[in-house]
Amino acid sequence: MLALLTDFGTQDSYVGMMKGVIASITPHGRVIDLSHDIPAGDVARAAFELWRSAPFFPKGTVFVAVVDPGVGTDRRAVALSILDQIFIGPDNGLFTYLTAKEEPTSIVEIKNDAYTLQTISNTFHGRDIFAPSAAHIMNGVEIEALGPPIDDLFRLPLPRLEVMDGLEVKGEILHADHFGNLISSIGTLFLEDDDILLEPWLPDCSPIHLSKKASTLHLPRGRPLTIHTTFGNVAQGGPVAYIGSAGLLEIAINQGRAVDLLPDLIGSEVILKSR
Amino acid sequence: MLALLTDFGTQDSYVGMMKGVIASITPHGRVIDLSHDIPAGDVARAAFELWRSAPFFPKGTVFVAVVDPGVGTDRRAVALSILDQIFIGPDNGLFTYLTAKEEPTSIVEIKNDAYTLQTISNTFHGRDIFAPSAAHIMNGVEIEALGPPIDDLFRLPLPRLEVMDGLEVKGEILHADHFGNLISSIGTLFLEDDDILLEPWLPDCSPIHLSKKASTLHLPRGRPLTIHTTFGNVAQGGPVAYIGSAGLLEIAINQGRAVDLLPDLIGSEVILKSR
Amino acid sequence: MLALLTDFGTQDSYVGMMKGVIASITPHGRVIDLSHDIPAGDVARAAFELWRSAPFFPKGTVFVAVVDPGVGTDRRAVALSILDQIFIGPDNGLFTYLTAKEEPTSIVEIKNDAYTLQTISNTFHGRDIFAPSAAHIMNGVEIEALGPPIDDLFRLPLPRLEVMDGLEVKGEILHADHFGNLISSIGTLFLEDDDILLEPWLPDCSPIHLSKKASTLHLPRGRPLTIHTTFGNVAQGGPVAYIGSAGLLEIAINQGRAVDLLPDLIGSEVILKSR
Repeated sequence: MLALLTDFGTQDSYVGMMKGVIASITPHGRVIDLSHDIPAGDVARAAFELWRSAPFFPKGTVFVAVVDPGVGTDRRAVALSILDQIFIGPDNGLFTYLTAKEEPTSIVEIKNDAYTLQTISNTFHGRDIFAPSAAHIMNGVEIEALGPPIDDLFRLPLPRLEVMDGLEVKGEILHADHFGNLISSIGTLFLEDDDILLEPWLPDCSPIHLSKKASTLHLPRGRPLTIHTTFGNVAQGGPVAYIGSAGLLEIAINQGRAVDLLPDLIGSEVILKSR
Repeated sequence: MLALLTDFGTQDSYVGMMKGVIASITPHGRVIDLSHDIPAGDVARAAFELWRSAPFFPKGTVFVAVVDPGVGTDRRAVALSILDQIFIGPDNGLFTYLTAKEEPTSIVEIKNDAYTLQTISNTFHGRDIFAPSAAHIMNGVEIEALGPPIDDLFRLPLPRLEVMDGLEVKGEILHADHFGNLISSIGTLFLEDDDILLEPWLPDCSPIHLSKKASTLHLPRGRPLTIHTTFGNVAQGGPVAYIGSAGLLEIAINQGRAVDLLPDLIGSEVILKSR
Repeated sequence: MLALLTDFGTQDSYVGMMKGVIASITPHGRVIDLSHDIPAGDVARAAFELWRSAPFFPKGTVFVAVVDPGVGTDRRAVALSILDQIFIGPDNGLFTYLTAKEEPTSIVEIKNDAYTLQTISNTFHGRDIFAPSAAHIMNGVEIEALGPPIDDLFRLPLPRLEVMDGLEVKGEILHADHFGNLISSIGTLFLEDDDILLEPWLPDCSPIHLSKKASTLHLPRGRPLTIHTTFGNVAQGGPVAYIGSAGLLEIAINQGRAVDLLPDLIGSEVILKSR
């Protein structure tokens, strides 16, 4: 199985061509779209979507991620094996979150033109290098065959996630989703009876328990928000903080769009406090 | 075969995660996208798309519909069998049109956590409950295994469709499609020689014949429109009423967008009159 | 394998219904989306995407292209065989670029209702004629079975591409892609060492070599652009001309959107000059 993530949009036939190349090499391989509407060049957003979705795919899935503003320059093309899955794409930070707490089993630089198209354009390595290399992996080629091993990856700066003296967690708003819900870096959070358990998804941060009832989320302005179970727990039009489906604290407006009311919040610090 | 309908959009990896879950359970199952761009929370629009598209899918298709503003509250999760197909989703009205004239063979409330993910979030039952339950159905599990039988479904109010004394049919404009064509509730209509045959898609309404030539569509303002065969039958930029591909009366502008000229028409009463 | 190209968008279930029809006829056939976001009624854009993507699909692929503003009028429905692939759609110019330099092996007018749905609407031949005919082709039916042979196709006017005295190539800007990159008709271009080789994709135009270093692209206004390898070769925010992934000369802004700065350029003449 192959999962595709790009910022190519769906008006041009760029994604279709990648699938044509894949089907030419592995006619029975199954391809699933993760997203093709990542904002153009937004490597951090793509890294986030890879991190949050990979655990829901079968072992052995080959992920091809192409958000690649540096295509044709000297940025490397890489393949890595981590958590029994394989990831292929440009080495520009796309794998930052996936590898934040876990080491890849192996990383190679893709150089073997036996597994790429014969003619390689300077601006569409998704079609000419990443798709065919991934299709050959689906056919049973080992990633080691794609090129020489390397031992480092380019990494983006990590979002803020800091536990302060056990009663405060500082994070930031990462982005808004399709529903306008604002997703923060505070997590991974789990509910256990009346407690919130933090098992940090980012390194250098210790697990803690907070009391759910005693916890509030503090934004740069406005009243602190209590933590609810779901957006339907507050009145229509009301703001609500809750643990979202990625285990991260989110802010929503019930049946509204939080990002439209609070657009400046993206990138801002938010603090989860327990009295 | 499984068909997916959501309001999740395609920027986030929500749909991709559902497909990852499905593929983990039924690796060879085929998944078809009905739409992921239903306006956020628009249950009626999703109910319409389910109704109009289901007849074009093979018997035994499993439809998963997730437009679910009440996720995590006490709204039920249901599965139903009707017309040799299976439908799975929240019990919030999504199946209103499908079941308007036809009784489901069976309905169950989904409660069996043997067929869901082990950890269930409060805001993404599409991934955690509906996708895995549907994938198990594709694997041969009977819907009765998903939970106890129930005998009612939540229903939305039906659109207006009224036959007045045999010569007038009152309906309303439901929504605009991608081309800006305005789709009314007046149907299902069939052409037979020079007659229009109405076989109502909604209950409490009798079949009638109208003369096509003598029929006109009356909007709240403006001249009545004669009924044409297709939008290409009028001059470019001209308004045209015709029987659309769902068998409903539609209003278009040839090579233009009716909804841009007549945005207030959505929700308005329209009347098909035969002299 | 079947590849689908439409202007149906993804909000309505139009594309889903086509796939339901295809799956009803050929349950194991694989369907790939080329694009469903072609601008409404933009036959030329669809013709371009067919031309550029077809070479990346396996031999025997069946392409179904439905951008069909004249649906229900007397425009013909056709199927053609060219370059070991099959193309199906309305005869309104969709195949203009594919057949600009190459003759189809055969063309038929689709008339055989044994391979369409039983009821044919006047406004959705994608679902009722093209999808089922294509699915039967995937099942092994020959295109000759779809209807009588014809020997001509409706053709759009071709974009400008003219070689002037061996040192100048005149073309025009065709459209902008998802990234805002402006794609010209000047190509197909290949790099050979320090030379640019033009092997025209349009007829009535001879191959030539130009020196890459000595070549510049002239727009209606502003300074000529030198030809670079990729957009990453210029500073962020800078304009750049380069040979895009279709082999056509393109104009981009590195990490920006050329079409937003130069919206008037679409349709304008551009000239590649070699000193």
